[in-house]
Amino acid sequence: MPRPITFLSDYGLADDFVGVCHAVMLRIAPEARIVDLTHGLDRHDVRTAAMVLRRALPFSAPGVHLAVVDPGVGATRRAIALRTTEEDRILIGPDNGLLSLAAQRFGGIAEVIDIGRSPHRLEPVSATFHGRDIFAPVAAHLAAGAELADAGDPIDADEIVRLDMPLAFQDEDELFAHAVGFDRFGNIMLDVEHAELTGSGFRLGHGVDVNGRPGMYATTFADVAPGELILYEDAYKTLALAVNRGSARELLGVERDDELRIQPR
Amino acid sequence: MPRPITFLSDYGLADDFVGVCHAVMLRIAPEARIVDLTHGLDRHDVRTAAMVLRRALPFSAPGVHLAVVDPGVGATRRAIALRTTEEDRILIGPDNGLLSLAAQRFGGIAEVIDIGRSPHRLEPVSATFHGRDIFAPVAAHLAAGAELADAGDPIDADEIVRLDMPLAFQDEDELFAHAVGFDRFGNIMLDVEHAELTGSGFRLGHGVDVNGRPGMYATTFADVAPGELILYEDAYKTLALAVNRGSARELLGVERDDELRIQPR
Amino acid sequence: MPRPITFLSDYGLADDFVGVCHAVMLRIAPEARIVDLTHGLDRHDVRTAAMVLRRALPFSAPGVHLAVVDPGVGATRRAIALRTTEEDRILIGPDNGLLSLAAQRFGGIAEVIDIGRSPHRLEPVSATFHGRDIFAPVAAHLAAGAELADAGDPIDADEIVRLDMPLAFQDEDELFAHAVGFDRFGNIMLDVEHAELTGSGFRLGHGVDVNGRPGMYATTFADVAPGELILYEDAYKTLALAVNRGSARELLGVERDDELRIQPR
Repeated sequence: MPRPITFLSDYGLADDFVGVCHAVMLRIAPEARIVDLTHGLDRHDVRTAAMVLRRALPFSAPGVHLAVVDPGVGATRRAIALRTTEEDRILIGPDNGLLSLAAQRFGGIAEVIDIGRSPHRLEPVSATFHGRDIFAPVAAHLAAGAELADAGDPIDADEIVRLDMPLAFQDEDELFAHAVGFDRFGNIMLDVEHAELTGSGFRLGHGVDVNGRPGMYATTFADVAPGELILYEDAYKTLALAVNRGSARELLGVERDDELRIQPR
Repeated sequence: MPRPITFLSDYGLADDFVGVCHAVMLRIAPEARIVDLTHGLDRHDVRTAAMVLRRALPFSAPGVHLAVVDPGVGATRRAIALRTTEEDRILIGPDNGLLSLAAQRFGGIAEVIDIGRSPHRLEPVSATFHGRDIFAPVAAHLAAGAELADAGDPIDADEIVRLDMPLAFQDEDELFAHAVGFDRFGNIMLDVEHAELTGSGFRLGHGVDVNGRPGMYATTFADVAPGELILYEDAYKTLALAVNRGSARELLGVERDDELRIQPR
Repeated sequence: MPRPITFLSDYGLADDFVGVCHAVMLRIAPEARIVDLTHGLDRHDVRTAAMVLRRALPFSAPGVHLAVVDPGVGATRRAIALRTTEEDRILIGPDNGLLSLAAQRFGGIAEVIDIGRSPHRLEPVSATFHGRDIFAPVAAHLAAGAELADAGDPIDADEIVRLDMPLAFQDEDELFAHAVGFDRFGNIMLDVEHAELTGSGFRLGHGVDVNGRPGMYATTFADVAPGELILYEDAYKTLALAVNRGSARELLGVERDDELRIQPR
């Protein structure tokens, strides 16, 4: 049985891009199982995609993990396939930072291959649809048992593009965090893990101020009334802001990477 | 081979919620086949979801039927897995009525288990993503052959939450029905099965009045001109209202559970 | 192992139409692999669907290819299953032209069957959901090994509905092409293959005029600045217009089948 494949992209489902990539993969590996992690990411938002990939992969069986958010397709960015140090996961996608956070999560890069001229490519390779012509066929061949080393040309792990992420800051009774991502409900992901919150003033069930607005530091939405702001540990163990049956993003009027000052009350 | 799994939710496809649940299930049951019935239900609309589940399951092979529309996640609502009296289907989801209409459709509940502390859970269980941490892993273990009784603690079928549905009323030449659901085309589902329509004044191919607006009682959209209102038996054998190439919901200006007075003309 | 199935429709993913068709198919052919090419096509847009099917199938393994965009469901249009002359692909859908472009792509029709009264139908057949009651079950039975000839009544290939497509015209230094389709990014598909472009005045890297607006004839989006118009060979080898990080459809204000006059500059 082939290794399982996960697939994440910003292709959306309105067009046939995702479907054609599936067709290409199943033509090469007819027995492979493909999990669509999501294809609804904002177009060209490499960083959110990298964060989603990092948090989703631990729930997936180790396998081949295809990710395509690729604003530089057709230009000079590399196409890569890498193996992680832990769990031998294979990550495949453009070399624009998209794979970097997930690779870190599994101990870093053990081996990385430039697949831009992979023998597994579909010829002729188009200028604009490398998902179909490079990434999907390489993923399928690797899932079916081909060796990573045979998928292209080895390169140095130090050459791989990494992402600059904002960095939260906290002192005893004050947290400066950043709105590093949003979901479709308007919930705001912060750049602090729940376990990292050190200020002794933050206590579950007590109030907080977020940019001057009152909220509650609580466990679940059910702890606050509809319309109220809540600071909570999200399902991926990071701190997040939400409004019960509403949108924290709208309430607070924040854009990505905006700093939020959070204080106990 | 594992039992087939169907999966229905209000998670949408913009985020990775559905994909991560798939990943969790395939990690546990790598050979399982998962059919996504839909994930596009309106957020927190338990009743429409319950109706969609009831009408969709008869077309699916008996198996494990996962459904997650869960406004009370993290609060005190139970998580359950139940076996239906007919066809031995396993239904899994929150105990908020979501499963109740489908269970009735298959003869009621033969056995029901509280899975809130199931041994199949992913630990630590998050406060907000029980789809991933409780429902999906329980579904996958049951599909792979685990016994229902081993999935948690038995409870009494009488304790399960049921839904209050509106009730249509009719006399000889008048039908008072309710707009119990809508699809994305603006078609209106009524709470009357076609076979229940008793008024002798209703005849196929003849006119009707719907809240005073003229329409036609007909078999298919093709029986009326574009823009015209039609009363018809929908694909699930219930009466419905539609506008050929338009929206009956908009034309009639109705909200859910609004009563509609329908008369022959 | 059953033949692979591809599935394309305008059902969208908000409702359970697609999911129920999957459920029906897997009930009949539990081991079949189903690739969703896309279900996001504009409702009732048979021609765009036919073009998407034609361009997507060459990337899919030969198998059973189900397509449902069916404005005439319930009226007199036929339901058909056909076998292509090349590669023995089976195409299934309404007889409204939807399958005709893909059939041409594989050498035309070798055999065609009217499946409106197929023994594989789900009884009773609804008036409005032939995807579930006719097309999906026929597709699944054929994927599982049933003979095409046993799926219904043979008809003459000459009787099948074909599509009228606009025809591009060019002379030495002028191309009159049509906007035959759009994707969700606002890219415009033209009715000219890149290989058919004969005018010697068109040279990669040089300027063009499109309805009087300046653009560039180039290989990839990366060859022009954000906001600039580009004429390029798309991933399916046809000429297309795009705006780097923008919408060519909006910039040029064109509707489907509008003629575009393109000249070298």
